[in-house]
Amino acid sequence: MNEKRTEIASLGEFGLIKHLTEKFPLNHSSSIKGVGDDAAIIKYGNSKSTVVTTDLLLEGIHFDLMYCPLKHLGYKSVVVNVSDIYAMNATPRQITVSIGISNRFSVEGLEEFYEGVKLACKNYNVDLIGGDTTTSQKGFIISITAIGEVDENKLAYRNTAKEGDLLFVTGDLGAAFLGLQILEREKQIFLENPGVQVQLEEDQYLVERQLKPEAQRDTIALFEELDIVPTSMIDISDGLSSELMHICTQSNVGCHIFEEQIPIFTETYDAALKLHMDPITCAMNGGEDYELLFTMNKTDAQKIYGRHGIKCIGEIKKADYGYILESKAGMKHNFSAQGWNPLV
Amino acid sequence: MNEKRTEIASLGEFGLIKHLTEKFPLNHSSSIKGVGDDAAIIKYGNSKSTVVTTDLLLEGIHFDLMYCPLKHLGYKSVVVNVSDIYAMNATPRQITVSIGISNRFSVEGLEEFYEGVKLACKNYNVDLIGGDTTTSQKGFIISITAIGEVDENKLAYRNTAKEGDLLFVTGDLGAAFLGLQILEREKQIFLENPGVQVQLEEDQYLVERQLKPEAQRDTIALFEELDIVPTSMIDISDGLSSELMHICTQSNVGCHIFEEQIPIFTETYDAALKLHMDPITCAMNGGEDYELLFTMNKTDAQKIYGRHGIKCIGEIKKADYGYILESKAGMKHNFSAQGWNPLV
Repeated sequence: MNEKRTEIASLGEFGLIKHLTEKFPLNHSSSIKGVGDDAAIIKYGNSKSTVVTTDLLLEGIHFDLMYCPLKHLGYKSVVVNVSDIYAMNATPRQITVSIGISNRFSVEGLEEFYEGVKLACKNYNVDLIGGDTTTSQKGFIISITAIGEVDENKLAYRNTAKEGDLLFVTGDLGAAFLGLQILEREKQIFLENPGVQVQLEEDQYLVERQLKPEAQRDTIALFEELDIVPTSMIDISDGLSSELMHICTQSNVGCHIFEEQIPIFTETYDAALKLHMDPITCAMNGGEDYELLFTMNKTDAQKIYGRHGIKCIGEIKKADYGYILESKAGMKHNFSAQGWNPLV
Repeated sequence: MNEKRTEIASLGEFGLIKHLTEKFPLNHSSSIKGVGDDAAIIKYGNSKSTVVTTDLLLEGIHFDLMYCPLKHLGYKSVVVNVSDIYAMNATPRQITVSIGISNRFSVEGLEEFYEGVKLACKNYNVDLIGGDTTTSQKGFIISITAIGEVDENKLAYRNTAKEGDLLFVTGDLGAAFLGLQILEREKQIFLENPGVQVQLEEDQYLVERQLKPEAQRDTIALFEELDIVPTSMIDISDGLSSELMHICTQSNVGCHIFEEQIPIFTETYDAALKLHMDPITCAMNGGEDYELLFTMNKTDAQKIYGRHGIKCIGEIKKADYGYILESKAGMKHNFSAQGWNPLV
C-alpha cells in the first residue's frame, strides 16, 4: 500500500475525474471525443455494427478488497466487459468507467484502480472515453460500458446454434472458481489468526485466474485469420452449464457433451480434490473463467481443431434431446445450470 | 405502494432481467439487438456521429426514496442521461440501464422503477437495449449509459465558445433545488411527527421539477428547424455558475451576465424568500434544472429570441475579463462556481 494519502475531497469531483483520466490517450480514429464534455463521441464506418455491453460490479458482492488488489480490480473490471464484446465476435474499441467511492478510499487507491484500467486498455487496445465519479455511502461501486465494432455478417449471437454443430470451449475451466475458494480459505485463516503468513504460492495459477482473468482476444483474431464465424457464441462468466443452457434454450436445441473433453488443468483438478470438491462440478458450475463457448458447423470446425488450445466438448442436438453430460464411464446424465448467480 | 410482494430471489437474475425488460420494444432501425445476448448492437449510417454518456446514481447520495417514488426515479434516471446527449446537440437513441438492489426491494417496486424508465423511453423516443442487474448489500444503485447520434457538423462542444457570442438559457432556474429543500423540510417534519399530513400542494411545480425533470428535446428540435448550431452548449445539472465556468475555462474565455435576465419563476422566487434564501443564489448554484446553457453567434442568435422561452443572459468576453454577474442595481461581481458537488 502507498503511504501517501490525499483526501479525495481535496481534488473535488471535476478535479478527480481529470486527475484520474488525463493519462488515457485516445488511440482510435473512431474515438472522436473523450472525457471532458457532456458525452463522449464515437464514429464508425458504414459497414460496421456497433456493439454495446455494460456491467455493474459491487464490493461485497462481486469482489472483496481484502484479497483483491485495486489494480487487479481495475484490470478485471475492464476484462469482464471486453469479454462480452468478444463473445459477439466483435472487437472492443471504447469503454466508459463510472465509480462510486466512500471516503474510505484515498486518491492513491483510486490511482491503483485506474492503473489496472489503463493496463487493460493497453492490452485490449480500448480507449477510455468517459464515465462518472461520485461519492458512495458504503463500498466501492464500478459500472463499465464497453463498445465495440464488427462486420455485420460476422456477428455471433446466442440463439443461432444448429443441430449438428460442434461445441467448443477455449482455455480451461474451473480455475477461477477454485482460486476464489482458496482466497476465501486464506482470508478466514487470516481473520482467525491475524499474525499468520498467507500461503498462495502453490496455487498461483488459480489465484491469478480469479484476480486477473484475461479475455479471449486471440480467439477472435483466429476466427478472423481463418475466415470462419461461430454459429453461436457466449462467454463463460457464470459457469459452463449455465452458458450451455443459454445457447440451447435461446437456439431451441439440445446438446450432448463429454466429461472427458472438458478442459481442466492439473492444478485445478488437484486443488478441487484437496478441497473435497468434484473437479467436473467446479468446471461445469464455477464461473468467472471468461473463456468462450461457441458452436461451429462441421466444415469450419475442421479448421480450428487444436488451435490455441480450443477443445471440442460435444455436439448440438434437437431440442427434445435435452442436455446430456456423458461421464468417462459412458453414463449419461441430464444436467441443469447451477452457475454462480448473485441474485439467488 | 403495492400490497403484493414477490421476492426477487423467486425470479433469479436472468428471470428478473427478462421480466423487467421484456416490455421494451426496439423502435429504431439502428437498434439491431437489445437485451438477451452478451452485448447490445447498434448501427448508424456513415454520416452520423455516435454520442455516448453515462451516469451513476446512488441512493442516499443522489436520491432519497423517502420522498422519491420509484417510478419518478426511473423517469429521472433516464432524463439526466438524455439531457447530456441533447447537450451535444445530438438525438438520444438507445440506453442501457443497470441496477444494484438489496433484498429490501420487491419485484413490484422494481416494476414501478421500470415503468418510469419506460415512460421516459417513450417520451424521449429511446430504446432500452441492455443492462445488468445484481444484488447490492445496501441501497439502490442505478447506472445508465445513453447513446445518441448527430451529424458531425452539428455537434456542440463545451470548448468552442467565442468572444462576442451571446449566452442563452432555456426554461427557468432554481426550481429543482428549491423543490429539494421543500421535500427535505417535509421529510424532517414527518420524521419528527409521523402522524402529520405532508403539505406539498402549493409547491407542486417546484417538487415536480425536482422529482420529475424533463430534458430539452424541443430546444434541439428548434435548432434543427432553424438550421442553427450553438457555438457551445452544456446542460445545467450542477448549477448555472458551475456550467458557465465549464464553458468559459474550456473555451478559454470570460463572460458577463445580467442578474435581471436570469429566468426565475414566481413560485421559485417566493419559495426562496420563504426559506430565507437568495433567489439568485438558488438559480446560480442550485443545480438539477436540466435546462440547456448555450452560446450562439449574433447572426444565429437573432433567430431564436423569445422562442420556446429561451432567454439571453449575457455575452462571452475575452479570457482576462473574468466571470462577471451584473446586479439589477448595476453592480458588477466576480462569481465562481458553488454548484452542487457530491464529492466536496
